This record gives sequence, structure tokens and C-alpha cells, in this order.
Amino acid sequence: MRKSTPRLTVADVGESGLLARLERELVRRRERGVLVHVGDDAAVLTRLSPSAVLSTDLLIEGVDFDFAWGAWADVGHKAAAANLSDLAAMGARPRGLLLGLGLRPEHQVANVLALVASMAKVGRRFAAPLVGGDLSRTSGPLVVAVTVVGEAEPRRAFRRRRARVGDVILVSGALGGAAVGLALLSARKRLPAAVIRRQLRPEPQIALGLALARWGRVTSAADISDGLARDALHLAPRGCGVELDAEALPIAAATRRAAAALGLDVVERALSGGEDFERVVAMRERDVAAALRIAERAGTSLTPVGRVVSRSGLSISGRSSRMAPRGFDHFRSR
Amino acid sequence: MRKSTPRLTVADVGESGLLARLERELVRRRERGVLVHVGDDAAVLTRLSPSAVLSTDLLIEGVDFDFAWGAWADVGHKAAAANLSDLAAMGARPRGLLLGLGLRPEHQVANVLALVASMAKVGRRFAAPLVGGDLSRTSGPLVVAVTVVGEAEPRRAFRRRRARVGDVILVSGALGGAAVGLALLSARKRLPAAVIRRQLRPEPQIALGLALARWGRVTSAADISDGLARDALHLAPRGCGVELDAEALPIAAATRRAAAALGLDVVERALSGGEDFERVVAMRERDVAAALRIAERAGTSLTPVGRVVSRSGLSISGRSSRMAPRGFDHFRSR
Repeated sequence: MRKSTPRLTVADVGESGLLARLERELVRRRERGVLVHVGDDAAVLTRLSPSAVLSTDLLIEGVDFDFAWGAWADVGHKAAAANLSDLAAMGARPRGLLLGLGLRPEHQVANVLALVASMAKVGRRFAAPLVGGDLSRTSGPLVVAVTVVGEAEPRRAFRRRRARVGDVILVSGALGGAAVGLALLSARKRLPAAVIRRQLRPEPQIALGLALARWGRVTSAADISDGLARDALHLAPRGCGVELDAEALPIAAATRRAAAALGLDVVERALSGGEDFERVVAMRERDVAAALRIAERAGTSLTPVGRVVSRSGLSISGRSSRMAPRGFDHFRSR
Repeated sequence: MRKSTPRLTVADVGESGLLARLERELVRRRERGVLVHVGDDAAVLTRLSPSAVLSTDLLIEGVDFDFAWGAWADVGHKAAAANLSDLAAMGARPRGLLLGLGLRPEHQVANVLALVASMAKVGRRFAAPLVGGDLSRTSGPLVVAVTVVGEAEPRRAFRRRRARVGDVILVSGALGGAAVGLALLSARKRLPAAVIRRQLRPEPQIALGLALARWGRVTSAADISDGLARDALHLAPRGCGVELDAEALPIAAATRRAAAALGLDVVERALSGGEDFERVVAMRERDVAAALRIAERAGTSLTPVGRVVSRSGLSISGRSSRMAPRGFDHFRSR
């Protein structure tokens, strides 16, 4: 950000001018395991394990993020974190990020650089530098397309739908924070900051994913991005289902208090709110105690919240009122 | 496409309904080297060489493609081809594609499936199945974000800016076809089909890239996506430049005739039109004859069009009128 040109736009500098600035931001030093970086036709990562793990996320302004409550740097952080979280769900080790940006000509260069710098910072923290990208122009909402590549031992990579009937379902960390944080922002309340942070600056649980993959006793796993009610079902084999105990859900005290202040059903937010980017995993009952210790050593927690059952679909115990939690659907929910 | 529901929209089926249809379209058989496919948190490719080559392209309706002249299947084809072409520029072998789609709720399911099927078909043809993706919603133009992962021997991957002064510059195939094809479409002329096809259905030159990489005598290479005038400069080391001979440019007879009929300067289109997705490569003069034979065996051609020179920037000989070819800039050209 140069003070002399605070309002410099993308149209002012053009695509090549913007690319030159992004290269300066990103290619400041040699990254380990990166042979070819931003500025060539493709990136080359070396010393990758024979199994590459890949995931892509497409985030669109007004749907997946909103500048009414987050800054450009928040968007960059969340896009990287959400994408890295998909690798955590597989128990994989991130190695690199790619970014596609669809910009309007009037977008400010300083904002674009803030988004990219924030994304690159999150990536570097998890050993996944931003190694390549593409720019395009749009007349519509800002587009952020992010792709992560990582590595895993093929037989250790977690899969969906591999749990067995009777397996215990556990979730990492705490749920509902992102959804209650979004409700706080929508209500123009900026406190408590810890809950807001769950919405704007989620943390991908890479260390937990890697530790559980090394351990090797998880039968199935998924990312919690669309809400536990929806994502837990991903663990059950086809034809089987999941029973969750609403009273067992891990919900932070600050999230409960904020939800109460807003008059929200915190359990519903924890089940269906989405964007918590925690892990949901299944394992045999006899392995649960060891898993809890592994999570603690990885700096987080695991909480048993239900079981895989032979009846298909989702059932929820410990809840007096009836509900049909659905999770987020891009084309129906809003 | 089901005849009973010809106008089924994305909003009708919802995100999960659309995902289920895409999974049916894509996961019809086991692909070699693909362990985890569409339908999990991430894709897993096995037996990858230790060097992963990655590139991402972001294509936005109205800027990078237009339904006024291409169908949804054309868009899927071109997005895959453009992305694969970036790997060809590195001399890499494609292994998989990822797709992010930003859709409006009123988009028709049949169109979305046509786009995805077309992309998957191109990918399979080059041993790069569509292994993963993400859906989002937009209120604006359609968004197609495509990422390719491939493999290369690290020391064989082509780099930009590695040519030396005196190196000969060669281009593959023929230039200007895509730009003249676009002009034909804009003028609502659908003939000649071969020229239109250069715009709507480009072919990535994967075989040539791989053959040249095995050979090992290319000093620098790039994709021709923004126009030769811009992309040839990518081969020169910093501070050096490129001299092109306008009379040497390979231009197909059909392209010349179509340009003449439209009153276009075909050389200007060949230099600056972009989207030809051919290779531009540099090599020592003594290696040129061998390279021409390699290209022929790969089913295409290479044509010497200029040299790397010590004077920076681009100069063009063999042209009486002055011009300043700039190539395509997303934020300035239109």
C-alpha cells in the first residue's frame, strides 16, 4: 500500500501492472519445494509424495462472503482456510495454493494486494505457499477461486462413507461459532470478538488431520463446512445414517452467550450453520480414548456427538422441539 | 438431458441435486491413478511423479467467453483446453482437472451438464479426468474456474525467461485463427468452420510439449494465450528482448482468406489476437532442424519466427506500417 496512490485501481495499472505487483508481493524468497512460482505458465512443486491431494473452492461476493462485514484481508484468509480445511479432512499435508481472481476494473489495487497477502500468509503458515494464479475481469461480484494441492499416503487418506454401523462420531473444537458470528455481524454487533473471529478468520485443523492420519484408526472423515447435520451424513455408508445427540455438541460459552443475546437457537446454529471448518470423524468405540489424547496433543479437542446407525438419514436425540436441519445449499438456502 | 424436464433449473434441483447429477456424469468408471474422485472433500491422485505441475484459469462470461457465439459445451471444451495448454507450455503430462462453477439459480441443469461433460471429455482425451470441483451461486456472469495438475521431471520442465541472446524463436501450428474466428462470430458469419473452430474448440498441444521436453534442447517456452507479441517476450531474460519477422508467421490459408473477407489485418491478429494456445519456444540455431522433425512426428509443425536479442522489448521486421502490438489485457483492452 503506497500512501501517494491510495485510490489506484486495477484499471489504472492494467493486468500486467497488477501481475507485477502480485509477483513482488509473493516471490520475495525461495520457498522450499517450489521450483517454478507465480510468473510462469504453471507452478512446479518438487519432492511431492506420489499421492497428490487436490481441492478447489469457489467463493463469490454476496454469497460466500460480504464486504459489509469483512475486509479484503478477511476474505483472503477465509478462502485459504476453507480450502486448506478440505485437506485437513483427508488427513493430508498442504503443499501449495493457487488463486483465480475475478476483479472489476474499479477495484482498488491496495485491496487486491491485501486479499492476496492475507491468503499467502495463511498458506505459508501451513507450508502451502501461493504458487500460481490467474486474473480475469468481471462486471459482477468479486470472484475468488482457490485451489490447494497437498500430499498424503494413499492408504492413510481419509474417505467419506467408510464408517461402519456402531462407529462413534466425534467433532473437533467447537461448533456454531461461525454462524453466530455471522448473525452478530448482520446485527452490526462487533462483540464478542472471539465469536466474530470464528466467522471471519477460521482456522484449518491441519495438525489434527495429520495426527489422526498417522494414527490410522479413523474409519471415515469429512470437513464441517455446510453444517454438522449435513456433513456428518457423509461418513455413513450408503443406506445407513447418523444419530446425533444435540446435548453433546461442543459449543463455546461465548457462542452460547452471544446466541442468547441475539435470541438464536444455538443448537440449531451448531447443527446447520456451517463454516465452522472443524473435523467430523468416525471410529470404533474402543479407539475413542486414544483419539481424545491425540486431539489434545494437536492443540484442540474431539467430542463424541453421536453414532453411525443402520437406519438411513439423520436423527437427533436430546432435543425436545422438532427440527429438520438441512445445512447450507447454495441454490436453495437463501 | 431428459426430455420430460427440458427446462429444469439449478434452483429446481438444488446444490445437492446438481452434485448428484454431476457425480453420475463423472464417476462412471474407475480412472487409472485416481484414488478419490468427485464426491469427497478432496481428490487423491496416486502414482504421481515427485514434481507436480499446476495451473489455474478463471473464465468469466462476457469477458473470456460469450454465449452469443458459443454453446455451453464449447465453453467447457475451451476452458479445459486453455488450462491444459498451460501444462503443454511446461512440457508436462496432465493428470487431472478440477472445476469451480459459479451458477445463477435460473441456469438450466442440462446446460451445466453439457459444459461439465465437454470439459471432462477433453480432459480424458489427455489423460486428465475431472476429479473434483466446487459449486457456488452468483448474481452475475457465469464463472468457470478450472485447475489442472500434471507431472514433469523437474529439470525438464520448461521455464520462461531462460532463452539466450541469439536463440531462435519458433511457434507451433498456425496463428491468428482464434482471433479471426472470433471476428467471424462477432460478424455473425459461421464460415469457414475450421477458423471458427480455432476460437471455440482449441486443441492443447500436449504431445508436442512432451516430445520437446524429452528431447531437452528447448531453452525456454511459453503458452500463446495473450498473443505472440506479448507471449514471445516471456522467453527473453530480463533486460533482453525479441525480434519477430512478421512475414515468417505461420498463418493458415483459411485464416488469411477469412481475414481478407472481413477487411482485417491478419498479421496484426496473428501477433496480438491471442487464444491460439500454440507453443512459443526458443532454442539454439543448431537445434532447429531436429525440432522441426520432432514437431512433425507429434502431428504439428514448428516455424522459426524470430530471435532473442539484447535490446529489450519487442521489434518487428518485415512490416511496412508501424504498429504497437500489445496482446490482451483484461483490464485495459476492451
